[in-house]
Amino acid sequence: MTGPVDLAAVLSRIDRPWQPRTVAVLNDYDVRVVRTHGEFTRHSHPETDEVFLVLSGSLTIRMDDGDVALGPGQLYVVPRGTPHQPFSPDGAEVLLVEPSATVNTGDSPGELTAERRLA
Amino acid sequence: MTGPVDLAAVLSRIDRPWQPRTVAVLNDYDVRVVRTHGEFTRHSHPETDEVFLVLSGSLTIRMDDGDVALGPGQLYVVPRGTPHQPFSPDGAEVLLVEPSATVNTGDSPGELTAERRLA
Repeated sequence: MTGPVDLAAVLSRIDRPWQPRTVAVLNDYDVRVVRTHGEFTRHSHPETDEVFLVLSGSLTIRMDDGDVALGPGQLYVVPRGTPHQPFSPDGAEVLLVEPSATVNTGDSPGELTAERRLA
Repeated sequence: MTGPVDLAAVLSRIDRPWQPRTVAVLNDYDVRVVRTHGEFTRHSHPETDEVFLVLSGSLTIRMDDGDVALGPGQLYVVPRGTPHQPFSPDGAEVLLVEPSATVNTGDSPGELTAERRLA
């Protein structure tokens, strides 16, 4: 991961939704890309904020005080400890920024829990 | 900065190149957008890596061991302490991820040094 990374090339190699790939490591943080489709696990990250940036498609982040609808080029920060449920009926490509230790399903592990995987 | 942020809307309000705007705060990190045009100050950040993601246009990062050429959707991490000079003769829109304390010109302050500014 020392050269430039083409996000579209990495995304094209991902065959399943909700399985992030780490495309950059910045100190102890990761930049990840993920393909979303359908409904993800409702969860929170007690120890960190989480950045979502939609690259293509559309993503809704369901939160207790309302839905956040994101399209291409739109970004949102889910505050630490805040329950959220990504929902993407039509699919999206999303960039995430979070500490490298962050697990995708946070405090609600299950079948969608993914191991950290470098692109 | 609690709602969704539209990167294009923020970028459209930036009237000068090399003046980043912080569009998201993630723990003690910033996500910033910047319009690049021309040649920036050669500098390094002794305390941190720095992520560059080109959103549109083209950006070259001149480094001692060669140039890194980035187009839309391409990302590069400049390692901490590594001299680099962004160069963008045709202009670009770029997303940066770095600690909130990071100053754009790093160890080489000058007329292009920008104060941290929230979008």
